[in-house]
Amino acid sequence: MTSSEVELPVVEFEPGRWGDPGNPMHLSDSVLGALTMLGIDGAAPAQTAPAPAPSRATDAALAALRATGAGVSTADDARLHHLRGYSTPDLLKFRAGDASDAPDVVVTPSSAEQVAPVLQACAAQGLTLSPFAGGTAVTGGLAPERNRPVVALDLRGITGLIDLDPVSQIATLAAGTRLPEAEKLLRAKGFELGHFPQSYEGATIGGCAVTRSAGQSSIGYGRFDEMVVGLTVATPIGSSEIGTAPKSAAGPDLRQLFLGSEGAFGVVTAVRVRVHPVPAVRRFYGWHFADFAAGSAAMRHLAQSSVRPTVLRLSDEAETGLNLANPGSAGKASGPVGGCLMVVGFEGDEADVDCRDGYVSARLAELGGTFLGEEPGEAWRVGRFRGPYLRDPLLDAGALVETLETVTFWSNIDRLKADVTAALTGALGEQGTPAVVMCHISHVYPTGASLYFTVIAKALPDPLAQWMIAKKAANAAIRGAGASITHHHAVGVDHRATYLDEIGDVQLAALRAVKAALDPQGVLNPGVLLP
Amino acid sequence: MTSSEVELPVVEFEPGRWGDPGNPMHLSDSVLGALTMLGIDGAAPAQTAPAPAPSRATDAALAALRATGAGVSTADDARLHHLRGYSTPDLLKFRAGDASDAPDVVVTPSSAEQVAPVLQACAAQGLTLSPFAGGTAVTGGLAPERNRPVVALDLRGITGLIDLDPVSQIATLAAGTRLPEAEKLLRAKGFELGHFPQSYEGATIGGCAVTRSAGQSSIGYGRFDEMVVGLTVATPIGSSEIGTAPKSAAGPDLRQLFLGSEGAFGVVTAVRVRVHPVPAVRRFYGWHFADFAAGSAAMRHLAQSSVRPTVLRLSDEAETGLNLANPGSAGKASGPVGGCLMVVGFEGDEADVDCRDGYVSARLAELGGTFLGEEPGEAWRVGRFRGPYLRDPLLDAGALVETLETVTFWSNIDRLKADVTAALTGALGEQGTPAVVMCHISHVYPTGASLYFTVIAKALPDPLAQWMIAKKAANAAIRGAGASITHHHAVGVDHRATYLDEIGDVQLAALRAVKAALDPQGVLNPGVLLP
Repeated sequence: MTSSEVELPVVEFEPGRWGDPGNPMHLSDSVLGALTMLGIDGAAPAQTAPAPAPSRATDAALAALRATGAGVSTADDARLHHLRGYSTPDLLKFRAGDASDAPDVVVTPSSAEQVAPVLQACAAQGLTLSPFAGGTAVTGGLAPERNRPVVALDLRGITGLIDLDPVSQIATLAAGTRLPEAEKLLRAKGFELGHFPQSYEGATIGGCAVTRSAGQSSIGYGRFDEMVVGLTVATPIGSSEIGTAPKSAAGPDLRQLFLGSEGAFGVVTAVRVRVHPVPAVRRFYGWHFADFAAGSAAMRHLAQSSVRPTVLRLSDEAETGLNLANPGSAGKASGPVGGCLMVVGFEGDEADVDCRDGYVSARLAELGGTFLGEEPGEAWRVGRFRGPYLRDPLLDAGALVETLETVTFWSNIDRLKADVTAALTGALGEQGTPAVVMCHISHVYPTGASLYFTVIAKALPDPLAQWMIAKKAANAAIRGAGASITHHHAVGVDHRATYLDEIGDVQLAALRAVKAALDPQGVLNPGVLLP
Repeated sequence: MTSSEVELPVVEFEPGRWGDPGNPMHLSDSVLGALTMLGIDGAAPAQTAPAPAPSRATDAALAALRATGAGVSTADDARLHHLRGYSTPDLLKFRAGDASDAPDVVVTPSSAEQVAPVLQACAAQGLTLSPFAGGTAVTGGLAPERNRPVVALDLRGITGLIDLDPVSQIATLAAGTRLPEAEKLLRAKGFELGHFPQSYEGATIGGCAVTRSAGQSSIGYGRFDEMVVGLTVATPIGSSEIGTAPKSAAGPDLRQLFLGSEGAFGVVTAVRVRVHPVPAVRRFYGWHFADFAAGSAAMRHLAQSSVRPTVLRLSDEAETGLNLANPGSAGKASGPVGGCLMVVGFEGDEADVDCRDGYVSARLAELGGTFLGEEPGEAWRVGRFRGPYLRDPLLDAGALVETLETVTFWSNIDRLKADVTAALTGALGEQGTPAVVMCHISHVYPTGASLYFTVIAKALPDPLAQWMIAKKAANAAIRGAGASITHHHAVGVDHRATYLDEIGDVQLAALRAVKAALDPQGVLNPGVLLP
């Protein structure tokens, strides 16, 4: 057994840089050396400090918001702390001094009861409202249309373990509870959530719900949308408790209408979510496969079996070569040269883990895997949240770096990987900046899997324009292959056009009808998810 | 290994009686003897043959329907074959000669392409349309409002395995394909669906989708709504392909808006659904537990574990005593006297089944179970679809018999079981007809389980009125306990009032908005699901 992520603290991200300001990553000499092959010279591009334009909120609007009892601020610092999220375009805009998406007002309720009055005040005062949870958005979900003054509703004051049902293994958590705080509260009662998205250190329970977050233990504990059994939602037309049972045949599953709704239909104030007892045993292994095809075939076999591990991920040859699964040692070779690293983890009581470990290990060996022992698995586990920390120093060194992800059925995985890789390398290569594209599979299902891409190239003088060309090409490749535009990053504003193409007119009509019924004045996150 | 249900044939139900007309059940002397304890004398109540009123469809309407290329009939026999479903109230109305819900026209498309033109013809001609799949509905889903002439759209001519993706393990099946036919088509390719609702012999793929069917292997292969990866839906405003990936963060999961929609939002014409290779090994065991509390605690333990069987069900003391898990021997004691019978099944390849069987059996023994070997499990498996066949001979013998089901979280199971049992016995006892109420758990989740009740009492001269009093009391008990009105029987017309109480005004507003957007003229199943 190893130490658990539940002991990690909540991290307060600073505007414009990912992660814990007190614990940044630095690029090793081997990484800096590798970057020169892409023409990246390590020279830091110029930056401009952003300063928001004056708030457009009227005194009357501010008074109405204050009357709700929630905190209200128009201070520049507060507004900058709620400026967009942490996509590379967001970071590049920040570095360029672009504060144009800053909310006009930041409202900080201290209780769920203040949310409905805030919604009413916004409706009455002609304001729009964008729910703000962990702030770790990467698809423009915090940058709504600005035709009216924008309120950022920061939910991080609505926290806590409201209820724990140890028999049903259900926790009711306030929406603003950060994931590390949720784990700490649960662990005091003998339970865990086990939800570890890459944004774990900052993300909130409510944010995970409305964006359909997927955590690194998704094969073991499920996606967040599979873990949720109930939601408390405040909409402009009233509040609702959604979900009365684990599963039901009582009409459509309306939990799945609000999960993924990105604040466009209502504000989630509490989430009832499945938890599990603190595992007695945790085992993480590394396995080596000769190539991505062999590794992904083995993953498919496990995903289509009844006996599965708790964690399963596979880095392709490029990502394995750069050792991105162990960010602290990125660029340093470790283990076998060439091929692909798979991480396989088990959590549970001893009998359960022994049973699954025995079955899974035998299958992986049959399917061509070479057992690497616990060290690579443990290295991944310890460094699992550090990967995104590399992005800021890479940008500082003159690189353009971004990630994107998609999901498709197994029979389409190879085509999708090839098409997206070709789109990214083509679109960047045509701009004179050859790119390295790496990929991993970190979420698998019986019928398919996600693909997560990391792309690095030399930054041009306008890196935002450079990236948007590449992103557009990747989006087209994803849709061309019939895959979904996002597996776990949500739609926001950035994916909206591609999303509308994905769902088509009939489904859009259904969503717009829901939006119009629940939010008739269009207060909630206008332009996010839906046009 | 044992023979498989995939070899069972499709059964054409006759109006007014459940199941295969050529293979009815007869009550044994021991059952007839037991019935006398409830005052049931075995004398057959009078019946009247139903005859529908003349069709209200105009010649113009019929011509418009015929122009679509679909078959069109207003014959009494065709209309009687589409008269309601097979709830006990449906059977009692049939026996009373009540044909008032018969559709005015039966339309039988032979291809999915004819569905949209039929919808257009209905809209143009002022008709409403009720999709008809297997016809095995038990909650009034085939009895829409009759303020306009009603078309029954019989989808059973739209059949077949449209596509099989053996790598992704996904089958695309036409909506009208019966479950036994789907299994036969898949088995020819080495795959199975493994979806076994009690209505297996007659039910269709599309019907399972729109009612959120749960099959007897739900712990192994999932509920039908969990198996579906995509839907093709024809709505009055156009058709849509819903679902582009196994899971996605691209907005709300709109599959879950159409699953459970009971034909109110559109007509499902094809379903893409997860399948699995034909298992090499099938093992079904019986286990004995001292009482329901011990058995359900053991089920909860397994449902909350990572290693689970393929089938798991538990009969309470009353159901075990009557041997309902083995309908062919109902009323005959077998195995230990007293306590509860659990059926535990495994399907898969040998290594997988050995692994899970070893873990599960050890746990059940630890949790107080006594292993009964394969005979009780196999008896259940072979007789698994025969239980509902007992209802017609019981009605013939002067009994009132019906089933109902609900679902809640584990911590609420004992209360729910007690409350529903008390409501049924109270409501029937107060009418002078003491009732026997039996219960089983046949679907479990980490956070909760379904409860399925069977109730038997002496029929009064107006058994429909007698039952409606009991049903109303049961519904109130279910809602009073905070449970869902249905786990897998759907809402229809019969559960609608209780359903609206369950979801509340905000969720109703969302559903009505979707309905209005997709079906602006209210053609689709008016009154079913939504008022």
